[in-house]
Amino acid sequence: MDERRERIGFAGLGTMGQAMAANLARGGFPLTVWNRSPGRSRRILELGAAEVPSPARLAAASDVVVICVRDTPDVEEILFGPEGVAAGARKELLVIDCSTISPAASRAFGQRLSERGVRFVDAPVSGGSEGAQQGTLSIMVGGDAGDVARARPILAAIGSTITHMGPVGAGQATKAVNQVILAGTYLGVAEGIVLAMKSGLDPATVVRALSGGAAQSWVLANRSERMIRNEYPIGFKLALHRKDLGIALDLAAQVGAALPIAGLAAQIENGLIAAGHGDDDNSALARAIRAWSGLEG
Amino acid sequence: MDERRERIGFAGLGTMGQAMAANLARGGFPLTVWNRSPGRSRRILELGAAEVPSPARLAAASDVVVICVRDTPDVEEILFGPEGVAAGARKELLVIDCSTISPAASRAFGQRLSERGVRFVDAPVSGGSEGAQQGTLSIMVGGDAGDVARARPILAAIGSTITHMGPVGAGQATKAVNQVILAGTYLGVAEGIVLAMKSGLDPATVVRALSGGAAQSWVLANRSERMIRNEYPIGFKLALHRKDLGIALDLAAQVGAALPIAGLAAQIENGLIAAGHGDDDNSALARAIRAWSGLEG
Repeated sequence: MDERRERIGFAGLGTMGQAMAANLARGGFPLTVWNRSPGRSRRILELGAAEVPSPARLAAASDVVVICVRDTPDVEEILFGPEGVAAGARKELLVIDCSTISPAASRAFGQRLSERGVRFVDAPVSGGSEGAQQGTLSIMVGGDAGDVARARPILAAIGSTITHMGPVGAGQATKAVNQVILAGTYLGVAEGIVLAMKSGLDPATVVRALSGGAAQSWVLANRSERMIRNEYPIGFKLALHRKDLGIALDLAAQVGAALPIAGLAAQIENGLIAAGHGDDDNSALARAIRAWSGLEG
Repeated sequence: MDERRERIGFAGLGTMGQAMAANLARGGFPLTVWNRSPGRSRRILELGAAEVPSPARLAAASDVVVICVRDTPDVEEILFGPEGVAAGARKELLVIDCSTISPAASRAFGQRLSERGVRFVDAPVSGGSEGAQQGTLSIMVGGDAGDVARARPILAAIGSTITHMGPVGAGQATKAVNQVILAGTYLGVAEGIVLAMKSGLDPATVVRALSGGAAQSWVLANRSERMIRNEYPIGFKLALHRKDLGIALDLAAQVGAALPIAGLAAQIENGLIAAGHGDDDNSALARAIRAWSGLEG
């Protein structure tokens, strides 16, 4: 069977999932979709997809099920709930989980599925809603080599960088590393922008002057302007980064890593979410540094 | 008078200063040098420079004096010490201070010099020893527009990005912002690398997988390998970054900015310097995260 003809079932039509499912439909994959809450499928159905009322029916209609939902319990419900994927799966079904969830839970899900002959890879993505729409996501994959090879042509329709990181769970661990690095980079850039503003410098000129040097980063180039204007259009929601930091800090506790900046960022994000900023872009971490420094935060 | 013919006096032949003075000599500027401790001038004299025994004599022989020394008191001694620049300067001498020192002290030095008819710009650099050797430093300049225009052809011989940031002191404030951003970026990347290693991932593969995305930075691309190997060849000395963070934290206290990550980085660097790691590259901040996580630090 031509790999391109694997029938895809897509579970989770949020902002990311809708864009990814659309790219799979445009890529020529026969597509069936399911979403927990109704009314998110119109755009996908117009691209020729079918819709089913449960993950079990999705599994029954598909060779490969791709999942993109918010958190660990959502994935567990889709896989093992009463109308879940496991209830409808044939042997050799491949589940590709593009959600960002716990590495340990991913390993447990993979184990439970393998007992029913179902294959599993974790494949969390980064690149935000722009990356999802443009099909340029970075995808970090954990799983057996054969399963990853089978997933690759499907992932190639939604991302531009696909890296096999190791066994099941390794993709999620890599995504956790990504979110930890981002915490430090966001806070460093936020502190720099606030120091520039309070010192009477033109912060946009500062960004220009520094962007060729050692302080250069994607965050400095693409998010400092939001921090200067104190406006944080999405992007990637701060509340989701907080959820991902929780996964990273759990992982750190399990493997024995001390992450002081990531821990501090999580606490700052708790406060920002409580203040109603959870739907801001992640760069709204700058609100805290601004507010502590007497700027509008 | 052709701008290129301004006679340059260069004070401070450390690693950075030697490389910068050599590029001025190669750029065709008539050059005289002075260094506090002897024996650092041979390479520059071979390029045709002259040497004098005091900053006062340097000023007397020059139209423009460039200073590149370690810290605020060193600059003060060169300018206003008993055999200092001020003692030998004619009116319209231009002093270009490429050291990284306090913005407030720079303003005070500029004021004191202007009372004697001597012009002053602050022009701290970034780009490390490689940038100094290759003449590709980023230079952040503070001063009056006319003085900065006069300094520009000289700075163009030692750097590739020259940005006028505002009045005297603005170059130093911008350099402080640079060092603050670096503190967060170094710590974020260090925490990510340690989490990757402790999670059993191949950290070099993690760096590759993440470098196309939002976690991308100069530090991730150019310094993560040192953190993985736990070897920190220079680069830029951690003890000098600690000195620069002191300047940034003083500035933050003066202007009212709260910099929690920069403050934490300064404390971590205190410990690393006490443990004998002050001459390591700045990326040795990772030693602390490694050690706290049970890796060799």
